[in-house]
Amino acid sequence: MLPLEHETQIRVRYAETDQMGVVWHGNYLQYFEQARTEALRAYGWSYQGLEAAGIMLPLVEAHLVYLRPARYDDLLTVNTSVREPATARLRFEYEVRNAAGERLATGYTVLGFVDATTRRPCRPPAGLKALFAA
Amino acid sequence: MLPLEHETQIRVRYAETDQMGVVWHGNYLQYFEQARTEALRAYGWSYQGLEAAGIMLPLVEAHLVYLRPARYDDLLTVNTSVREPATARLRFEYEVRNAAGERLATGYTVLGFVDATTRRPCRPPAGLKALFAA
Amino acid sequence: MLPLEHETQIRVRYAETDQMGVVWHGNYLQYFEQARTEALRAYGWSYQGLEAAGIMLPLVEAHLVYLRPARYDDLLTVNTSVREPATARLRFEYEVRNAAGERLATGYTVLGFVDATTRRPCRPPAGLKALFAA
Amino acid sequence: MLPLEHETQIRVRYAETDQMGVVWHGNYLQYFEQARTEALRAYGWSYQGLEAAGIMLPLVEAHLVYLRPARYDDLLTVNTSVREPATARLRFEYEVRNAAGERLATGYTVLGFVDATTRRPCRPPAGLKALFAA
Repeated sequence: MLPLEHETQIRVRYAETDQMGVVWHGNYLQYFEQARTEALRAYGWSYQGLEAAGIMLPLVEAHLVYLRPARYDDLLTVNTSVREPATARLRFEYEVRNAAGERLATGYTVLGFVDATTRRPCRPPAGLKALFAA
Repeated sequence: MLPLEHETQIRVRYAETDQMGVVWHGNYLQYFEQARTEALRAYGWSYQGLEAAGIMLPLVEAHLVYLRPARYDDLLTVNTSVREPATARLRFEYEVRNAAGERLATGYTVLGFVDATTRRPCRPPAGLKALFAA
Repeated sequence: MLPLEHETQIRVRYAETDQMGVVWHGNYLQYFEQARTEALRAYGWSYQGLEAAGIMLPLVEAHLVYLRPARYDDLLTVNTSVREPATARLRFEYEVRNAAGERLATGYTVLGFVDATTRRPCRPPAGLKALFAA
Repeated sequence: MLPLEHETQIRVRYAETDQMGVVWHGNYLQYFEQARTEALRAYGWSYQGLEAAGIMLPLVEAHLVYLRPARYDDLLTVNTSVREPATARLRFEYEVRNAAGERLATGYTVLGFVDATTRRPCRPPAGLKALFAA
């Protein structure tokens, strides 16, 4: 039943900073990815299992808004939510906060279901579609 | 005089692929970054020089649309353009093509001028503002 | 009192894989880095705190041996140990295992104490030297 | 005929720096990888072609020595050499210099020939073995 929500904690690695002294902006896409993996797991789905079953979920679109910098060793909380039913695509929304509760970044990613063999768009598995239904 | 345009070539590294056998989606933000560095250089500006002069350009927003996958060892062409005058912010647009001319991804990033000492928004240098003027 | 030992768990991210379907070899240096950060924290030291106190610990040397591949979503255990007293340098040893207990990789890194202002080698803080003493 | 030598130029990306203001140490493994890809290409071999022919070359061992930091936008020269005949393994040595000719890092990587289907060690292709012969 939508909306689905999940929270994941991620510790910022040194390698993820840049010479501005903050997390390099592209690394938020790693945080989003880790967060949706954990969100799917929390609802009984494994992204690894989907690929093993012949379904891939490449990104179709990504959007990021940067509000405040994250810093080395920060313990971030990523809130992941799904608010729209799964069609041939699946949309995740994210909000990243630091330990002080400040919002650092928001964004969304749109993923498309793809048949791993044909590499063509396909339907989501029935169970996943049922999970992400209104 | 806007629009400014520039093309950069980037060879895909093995480390940039993921187990789907294509470039991991977050790496396009590295390509965009390298492309705008080269675009600025082509117009006589060095991002390194801006930082040395006390001005940083952190990302405020990023948007990416993925059309076709890039693969290991592909020689990509990134077209970078600026179409809007520089205010407190600067917007770059990107288009990534492979050697066959296929469009792989498009996107934009918005950067904000920040005083490196105070870490507060600031105005762009006069010369850069003049370059990015209508 | 040496040897000091610590264990950290790390979940493999999708972005860390490459088109061979396994973790890209360079990412083990991120795992080592995260593991020694947690090892220092477990013994009451924060690497972030060291930098705030004006001491940096850049790498001087790294060595890695790859035995078996790590895969996406694997829950890795990194065993970190210090067996030699801290001089101007500090040596960490690592062993990475998967959930089945198989050894995937081993390695070591040597870090040098550097004064953040002068960027010249310096002595370790007394407390850290006492911790890493025979 | 050994030794084989090759030089590649690599421009340091912003994303490759860390908060110490220098290239993060693990990124040298990306530089090494790009350098040996270009070295193989210069001698008529494509790593992509090897994989297409069913041979993978995962890393078995890596060693890095860091002498001086590389910085953002530095134009690095990586000297790659092969000094030992190819057996079931292939060893590359690297030397990284900046535009001033200063040696920044040295290292080597050992790669193992692996059959992509069985994922077991295999012999190098005859032509490659002939190239890397005494």
